[in-house]
Amino acid sequence: MTNNSKANKSDARLFEEQFEELVTELTERDLRDPVLADALGRLREVLFYNAPGGKRNRGLSVIGSLRELVPPTQLSQDTVQRALLVGWCIELLQAFFLVADDIMDASVTRRGQPCWYKKDEIGLDAINDSFLLEASIYRLLRRHCRDQPYYVHLLELFTETSFQTELGQALDLMTNIYNIFHQRNLLKRFIFLSFRYKAIVKYKTAFYSFYLPVAAAMYMAGINSEEEHNNAKHILLEMGEFFQIQDDYLDCYGDPAVTGKIGTDIQDNKCSWLVVKALEIMTPEQRAELETCYGHHDETSVEKVKTLYNTLQMPALYDKYQDESYQRLQKLIACHAQNLPHIVFLNFAEKIYKRNK
Amino acid sequence: MTNNSKANKSDARLFEEQFEELVTELTERDLRDPVLADALGRLREVLFYNAPGGKRNRGLSVIGSLRELVPPTQLSQDTVQRALLVGWCIELLQAFFLVADDIMDASVTRRGQPCWYKKDEIGLDAINDSFLLEASIYRLLRRHCRDQPYYVHLLELFTETSFQTELGQALDLMTNIYNIFHQRNLLKRFIFLSFRYKAIVKYKTAFYSFYLPVAAAMYMAGINSEEEHNNAKHILLEMGEFFQIQDDYLDCYGDPAVTGKIGTDIQDNKCSWLVVKALEIMTPEQRAELETCYGHHDETSVEKVKTLYNTLQMPALYDKYQDESYQRLQKLIACHAQNLPHIVFLNFAEKIYKRNK
Repeated sequence: MTNNSKANKSDARLFEEQFEELVTELTERDLRDPVLADALGRLREVLFYNAPGGKRNRGLSVIGSLRELVPPTQLSQDTVQRALLVGWCIELLQAFFLVADDIMDASVTRRGQPCWYKKDEIGLDAINDSFLLEASIYRLLRRHCRDQPYYVHLLELFTETSFQTELGQALDLMTNIYNIFHQRNLLKRFIFLSFRYKAIVKYKTAFYSFYLPVAAAMYMAGINSEEEHNNAKHILLEMGEFFQIQDDYLDCYGDPAVTGKIGTDIQDNKCSWLVVKALEIMTPEQRAELETCYGHHDETSVEKVKTLYNTLQMPALYDKYQDESYQRLQKLIACHAQNLPHIVFLNFAEKIYKRNK
Repeated sequence: MTNNSKANKSDARLFEEQFEELVTELTERDLRDPVLADALGRLREVLFYNAPGGKRNRGLSVIGSLRELVPPTQLSQDTVQRALLVGWCIELLQAFFLVADDIMDASVTRRGQPCWYKKDEIGLDAINDSFLLEASIYRLLRRHCRDQPYYVHLLELFTETSFQTELGQALDLMTNIYNIFHQRNLLKRFIFLSFRYKAIVKYKTAFYSFYLPVAAAMYMAGINSEEEHNNAKHILLEMGEFFQIQDDYLDCYGDPAVTGKIGTDIQDNKCSWLVVKALEIMTPEQRAELETCYGHHDETSVEKVKTLYNTLQMPALYDKYQDESYQRLQKLIACHAQNLPHIVFLNFAEKIYKRNK
């Protein structure tokens, strides 16, 4: 582990260093028709503004996982570089989704700076910019992995994960929290609350944030069996669910100076874990109050919802959930990891539990 | 040719018939997790509203080209079905771009009906719907072509073509016609006019509309050599240039009852062939007039531009261009088609020259 810890530290540095190189490659060495100069210049701007700046957990997980799956002696310099590159492809996939989601959600800030579409003279042209971020993934994979035995696996993994994420986003967009408020049939409301929330989280976040990086590393390590991928998926999707619940919690209770974003889930009428959990436990009177305040943009309404959350002791409920989830995960790893080194999953878990941004 | 003409007729029918089957496949037989039901229902709506309704020249060109590349006796029922399916993938790629372009261009109608994002309760959620259309391509290719020797070629062809189209759209979005008006350096203006317009057309339209369907058929027929693909590209991109010029012409001079859309290129300040050509030949006084009217939404300004186009005899200039282009193309086919059957290109040419929609 000591060796791998050291490796992780220098991987993070190598990962940073690779970014500029990769931008140069995409904008100067890939398509070289001179008439494209302005468009490639735009791509360069889009990449620099939107791809870095995240926490890079997803991107770094590819090399992190690969180091646990392949003995150090079998890990060539080239393979390390390729794993870092596949990591950047995941960051690009995330950037593609975030640029578009921010438009659809009418968000204002992202990672401590204005959302890309909010910048002067960008606006809805950002839609095409998001497409360019996505396309960059396949350009990079083609340039770097075309001769590798896992090339097609990666192409399929990225296209499949994109589809899953987009279906999750579709579910999220069509889930109007008012339908839940107004569902007087308690059984139906309960079913909706327990299933829909989890479905959104699984498809919109967990596949691309958790399964994708480990699955990519598995394919790079030559682990192709459906059974092993399903085992990993089982554990990682559970982890993803926790991660999103944490994200929802931080949207309301996190420190914007630390998270780099101002939460707007209450204003935006979002189907957040907080409101879903609150609806499960509140009195009919409290629900009536929530109903009149949730999804409104005035400060008074937002504050009333926050006060209600505090009355319901959401922070304590969240801490309890966090501890239970951590225990559950340890058991899942023990049961399902089988041939896969447990450390792959434990490393991941360490990073996300107890995070504050 | 008689046999192939008959085949073409029934191909068009088979193509129509395949669509419902393909929607069912994507929404009922592909991902089957019950929690996805609502999202897959949305995908169904998106597919039905946006994928059919076009002229289908692109989609039908795959099977059309394949019939000229492979002897009838070697063309199994399965191969025909797969070629039709790849044709639908091209229609889906087009639908993906059109849904998004309409948002970026603030268009109102498309194919004789309101643009998807203009429908009640759709709005910017249409961005994610466009992603779903794109993702459907890779789901279908995976389900139908995974075991074929040309699978990776098709994956690369679709991702590369998407990138080229998106770069073309980026160029288009950043090309402000006012920069041309205000470029007082005549040499620079000339260079800009002759190169930028052609670059937008080549990347935004010609690759996906012309090279993509024929290239897909070539890969399906086992024609993989770079040289043969470059030859085909040469001819088809030239054809694509003509097609777009025609599109620009019809935006102003076409009959909305026939084209199914109301042109807004003048109002939208578009870098259209008409304004590019007009700028080449008009007097400084006419240019001053154009400058004050172009890109404005009031009817008087639009009518003034149209009158100016008539004064400059744009319809006659266009007819002249059309005839010259057709002659040029015949020569190109004679020079570059080499091993490829000329009929592949000639069929294509017949369809687009002299079209009125």
